[in-house]
Amino acid sequence: MSCLDRTSANTPLVNWMATYLSVVAVLSVSLSVQADITDLRVNMDRIEQHIMELAEFGKNAEGGVSRVAFSQDDFAGREYIITLMEAAGLEVRIDTAGNLIGRREGQENLPVIMFGSHSDSVPGGGNYDGNVGVMGAIEVAQVLHENELVTRHPLEVVVFVDEEGGLVGSRAMIGELSDQALDVVSHSGLTIAEGIRAVGGNPKRLDKARRKLGDLAAFIELHIEQGAVLDDLGINIGVVEGIVGIQWWDVTIEGFANHAGTTPMDKRNDALLAAAELIQAINRVITSEPGTQVGTVGRISAEPGAPNVIPGKVVMSLEIRDLSAEKIKMLYDRVFAEAQKIGMKYKTPFTFQHIDVDAVPAPTDERMRAIIAGAAESLGLSYKLMPSGAGHDAQDMARITPTGMIFVPSVGGISHSPREFTRPQDMANGADVLLRTILKLDEAGL
Amino acid sequence: MSCLDRTSANTPLVNWMATYLSVVAVLSVSLSVQADITDLRVNMDRIEQHIMELAEFGKNAEGGVSRVAFSQDDFAGREYIITLMEAAGLEVRIDTAGNLIGRREGQENLPVIMFGSHSDSVPGGGNYDGNVGVMGAIEVAQVLHENELVTRHPLEVVVFVDEEGGLVGSRAMIGELSDQALDVVSHSGLTIAEGIRAVGGNPKRLDKARRKLGDLAAFIELHIEQGAVLDDLGINIGVVEGIVGIQWWDVTIEGFANHAGTTPMDKRNDALLAAAELIQAINRVITSEPGTQVGTVGRISAEPGAPNVIPGKVVMSLEIRDLSAEKIKMLYDRVFAEAQKIGMKYKTPFTFQHIDVDAVPAPTDERMRAIIAGAAESLGLSYKLMPSGAGHDAQDMARITPTGMIFVPSVGGISHSPREFTRPQDMANGADVLLRTILKLDEAGL
Repeated sequence: MSCLDRTSANTPLVNWMATYLSVVAVLSVSLSVQADITDLRVNMDRIEQHIMELAEFGKNAEGGVSRVAFSQDDFAGREYIITLMEAAGLEVRIDTAGNLIGRREGQENLPVIMFGSHSDSVPGGGNYDGNVGVMGAIEVAQVLHENELVTRHPLEVVVFVDEEGGLVGSRAMIGELSDQALDVVSHSGLTIAEGIRAVGGNPKRLDKARRKLGDLAAFIELHIEQGAVLDDLGINIGVVEGIVGIQWWDVTIEGFANHAGTTPMDKRNDALLAAAELIQAINRVITSEPGTQVGTVGRISAEPGAPNVIPGKVVMSLEIRDLSAEKIKMLYDRVFAEAQKIGMKYKTPFTFQHIDVDAVPAPTDERMRAIIAGAAESLGLSYKLMPSGAGHDAQDMARITPTGMIFVPSVGGISHSPREFTRPQDMANGADVLLRTILKLDEAGL
Repeated sequence: MSCLDRTSANTPLVNWMATYLSVVAVLSVSLSVQADITDLRVNMDRIEQHIMELAEFGKNAEGGVSRVAFSQDDFAGREYIITLMEAAGLEVRIDTAGNLIGRREGQENLPVIMFGSHSDSVPGGGNYDGNVGVMGAIEVAQVLHENELVTRHPLEVVVFVDEEGGLVGSRAMIGELSDQALDVVSHSGLTIAEGIRAVGGNPKRLDKARRKLGDLAAFIELHIEQGAVLDDLGINIGVVEGIVGIQWWDVTIEGFANHAGTTPMDKRNDALLAAAELIQAINRVITSEPGTQVGTVGRISAEPGAPNVIPGKVVMSLEIRDLSAEKIKMLYDRVFAEAQKIGMKYKTPFTFQHIDVDAVPAPTDERMRAIIAGAAESLGLSYKLMPSGAGHDAQDMARITPTGMIFVPSVGGISHSPREFTRPQDMANGADVLLRTILKLDEAGL
């Protein structure tokens, strides 16, 4: 419900009375929130049902979905989500970037509290990444609707467009989606610009979708962890400290390609042998410091790449992630120093080329963390402060508004896979924490 | 010269006399060999000139040749070689396998002493691999021709067909060229069978090219080292102990592909991190034993191969070469044991798949080594016993006859490259050792 639904009078007196009664009603509802919220709970079965219904759009043989942004399945999935939003009493619109926005008016002229996630998937993806946040946010709106609770702040449930293709919707919302990005061809076959137009946006008027610093009261995203930390420890809720920064390098090792039969072991400049020592050293450096930083060599090639030729050149990737840009720099400096030593030892010079992946660390708001932690605690749920190693729309939103993120366990830490799974109870826990966080924010502000 | 050239009489008495004189002449020439051979030397400038002339056929922009077997350039190069053989008094024929054979009759009904190498190159090859052995062998025949020396044994200079494509000519000569091998498409675009036919052989009658155990008195191949051992040490001659055996394996490491951002360092099954430790362990195992064994990882792939995904699977090659099959086995067993330990540590099982490359160790004949070493010594040349890490036609010939190999230095150890270079003096040294080895063999047998 909204307050306006109860006022249908049409005479001045009745109008005045209606306004008076309405204010009284609002005040009573508003006051009753504090009394009632400890009893408010989301509907676990409904969340699960919505997740399963959404899973029909783009479902694949392995039990997951390939609902890539701007595909026919994505369009159909969004239409389905609109029906859920409308059933939850939200007023739905599509901004010029193609983001789905369901609005619920508040009592006061205050900035919007926004919450949501995304509904597109990677090719060969699962049913929980993004979707849990979308269905959790709609469930929160539904519960407020059913309980006829009207918040002070207006609320907006957001379903960001094309998250998996590079946080397209949130980048547009903060005014950072470049013309170059618009020309990128997405997995659907459409360019980002064509895709935005196809879902009802207008790539020429992205400025209309932009929210500026201070426009929003807060942003909160519920998401599956995508790692196995919560699942391994049996913890209910992850209070996200921030989305880690990511730095990439291409590391090139120059050896000397030579005959594997005729070149004695002590006469070799084996680029792969040197690379192997660096791979080991990277692991040692990254794990030598306390903290949650990670370092990965995911790609490697050795040239000429024949079993009977000593590798003359190796190119491999290096990725380091952490919440602190300074720590990434420090770890990289140590890796670089190790590489120089190894290069001297094998006479195989190492060079590092920095690759710009535009992912600086995005800490969440400290006050938001406290509210989320308090919400979990008040619900009797265990929680843990942790970084998000994966990227999320929240990292963009953190640049314009106080942002918080709520993680729920991913079984086995699996994601971007049909085997991705989050238990219904965990989804409900996350949505309950989201609901209580919004109400607390609405009541007390930051 | 040959004795027959001097006998043109046509009466019985004259015939008898001629026969008598001929025998005396032969005896005197034969006896004079021992007296004269310390003065006999090959002509360095002529060898160099022939090498340079042959280098015209298939020459490439980098100063080397791409004279792959059965190419037009290969055909033209062989025609040129035939003119040199004929000028050296050799009777030239092409066997059914396409091998060029230049024969010089001996005085007695004895098995043939065969020597030679190959004239084809790899794509983008150099001017010395194979060619030094061919021109050295022809030079030996030329010197005998010019000095009118007739050996007891018949001599055959051989230019093996398509060495680089898999020792085709020598495999046919020992009766081991399979029908399957005949169907292989060579770099020329012709199948091996078509190529053999194009150079004047008959792939249907390869049995005619076959030499059986005991057919030959010996086989000797002069070749560039293709490694840098002689060049580094400043040694003139390599007395080859044998052609090493080669064993190949494909090593598969199974990890678990996972998100590089969300998977903590202590929760990873990183197949590449495990592979890196094995690459280091292979090097440690191979170099922990005295000897000339070599071990190489030349090829590696990591899947899925993205900078932001922990490698779930690595496949890499392992090659071990040594003169002793037992030693290869022992080294492999140690590598395998290390792999099992590393696999336990990282929870990344290793599997080894043996790849049949049909290259068992082929030791040279011990008596041949002594004769070659003695020849070098008598010429005042330094020498060193050493394995051949590369494959050669000699490894096939060693299965049917006592075989020896003479190495001369490759500058910088470079081969299969336009930058391949052997100094004229080193080529001449090698040919001198070849000449003296043949004369010693001819005189004293094994």
